[in-house]
Amino acid sequence: MISGTTKLIGHIGFPTESFKSPMIYNPYFEREGIDAVVVPMGCEVPDYPSFLKLFFRLSNALGTLITMPHKVTTLSLVDAASPTAAIAGACNAVRRREDGRLEGDLFDGEGFVRGMRRKGRVIEGTHALVVGAGGVGSAIAASLARAGVARITLFDSHPEAARQLAERLKRHYPALEVEVGANDPAGCDIVVNATPLGMRAGDPLPVEVERIAPSAFVGEVVMTHEITPFLAAVRARGCAFQVGTDMLFEQIPAYFEFFGLPPTTPEALRAAAQLD
Amino acid sequence: MISGTTKLIGHIGFPTESFKSPMIYNPYFEREGIDAVVVPMGCEVPDYPSFLKLFFRLSNALGTLITMPHKVTTLSLVDAASPTAAIAGACNAVRRREDGRLEGDLFDGEGFVRGMRRKGRVIEGTHALVVGAGGVGSAIAASLARAGVARITLFDSHPEAARQLAERLKRHYPALEVEVGANDPAGCDIVVNATPLGMRAGDPLPVEVERIAPSAFVGEVVMTHEITPFLAAVRARGCAFQVGTDMLFEQIPAYFEFFGLPPTTPEALRAAAQLD
Repeated sequence: MISGTTKLIGHIGFPTESFKSPMIYNPYFEREGIDAVVVPMGCEVPDYPSFLKLFFRLSNALGTLITMPHKVTTLSLVDAASPTAAIAGACNAVRRREDGRLEGDLFDGEGFVRGMRRKGRVIEGTHALVVGAGGVGSAIAASLARAGVARITLFDSHPEAARQLAERLKRHYPALEVEVGANDPAGCDIVVNATPLGMRAGDPLPVEVERIAPSAFVGEVVMTHEITPFLAAVRARGCAFQVGTDMLFEQIPAYFEFFGLPPTTPEALRAAAQLD
Repeated sequence: MISGTTKLIGHIGFPTESFKSPMIYNPYFEREGIDAVVVPMGCEVPDYPSFLKLFFRLSNALGTLITMPHKVTTLSLVDAASPTAAIAGACNAVRRREDGRLEGDLFDGEGFVRGMRRKGRVIEGTHALVVGAGGVGSAIAASLARAGVARITLFDSHPEAARQLAERLKRHYPALEVEVGANDPAGCDIVVNATPLGMRAGDPLPVEVERIAPSAFVGEVVMTHEITPFLAAVRARGCAFQVGTDMLFEQIPAYFEFFGLPPTTPEALRAAAQLD
């Protein structure tokens, strides 16, 4: 029940029609008696820099969830950003610190890491292949680096994107081994599809599945269907994996921590969510 | 259920803690399946002009409810205002027209007029005494003028406030007879307390009740208790009257019309409201 004491989480992007977060967060807030609400705000590019700042001047602003087309811009609008956000070149969450400064972070990759850990997998010291160095691939690579992988191989159909991401990773994690240019999963402990391949029927698979070790852990970002052709193939090979929506729900507890909300779990959020 | 298609009504003021509109509108929207939400937004004075404009740039902005301390400022920020808003010198609602221009109106007094009419009283051609020429008194006087009273007597403990209100009324309603300076209710068909008298124990009554005709209709703006000492006295005298919260609920259907929402009634709103 929204009242005059309710804290606002602005969900800022454009267009808003496909937003899912209000239907995930708000039923959970209601069930748990948390006096906060996620409010969709359709803000277009020219208005966004001013709107973000003014939103945070509201006395009941708790934070923002940032989505298309503002994630990259946000990095330049906040006063401080996490290494993860800096590496990926984007923020998807902003909060106001006590001193009024705005702090940005990026939790897409954190969802990947948390989901993997909760499935019992160790990340520290492993070798990961991330295919796709766009927004979500950069986010996952940055979070894997933060989580302690020893080595990351990056591949993108635009080699320059992979090369630049590699540079940013090395700048923040000098001990990390980073290589660019091959999408061969042989010998990798973690293999991630961070490309849109699999969204459309007839898309090629992002890597040669028969070269993935059955002991590897495979991640997928495509969410158009739960089991994409890539996941079906790695499942047949015996690999453990996580689906796209796992990453979505696994990252939400990280936002709760960031916004200072009470701890939660992906299961509790899924149980309350009303995503029809 | 808030989703990406939900339209926003920003309830803008500061501080927000005592806001009631979210608990009146939102349960009704939910019950009726109206895809809109009233969101409290604690905006302070220096930020308000920019915030109001940017709020209306949001693709899902439907309108704003404006409250303290922004009602007067708003009149100078909108592109067009109703005569009622211009006379009272304040707006408490803003909408965006098709052409992008912002339009302001003021519905406090409209609530008074609608409540009176729904109690079967005729306003056209009558003589009203409005005691108190502040924000709410100005609003009621302007709405009574619009509703067709023949004559208005204004009284305020600051005579200049009453005099200036009289001038603005005459400018917009040249045929209206307006007088200033006396608070004698004798001969008046409508008597309104638009002062804070009655909020505190021991306050004097706003007018001499024994000089009110038993046939007169009496209005009260004080909402600290349902039956104020003034209303108790006029009830004992046999007068018909309306309480402060009547004015509150009676004005809401006017906002619905203004925002282009489906028609509603004070009864339906009261039934859904969750004002503990």
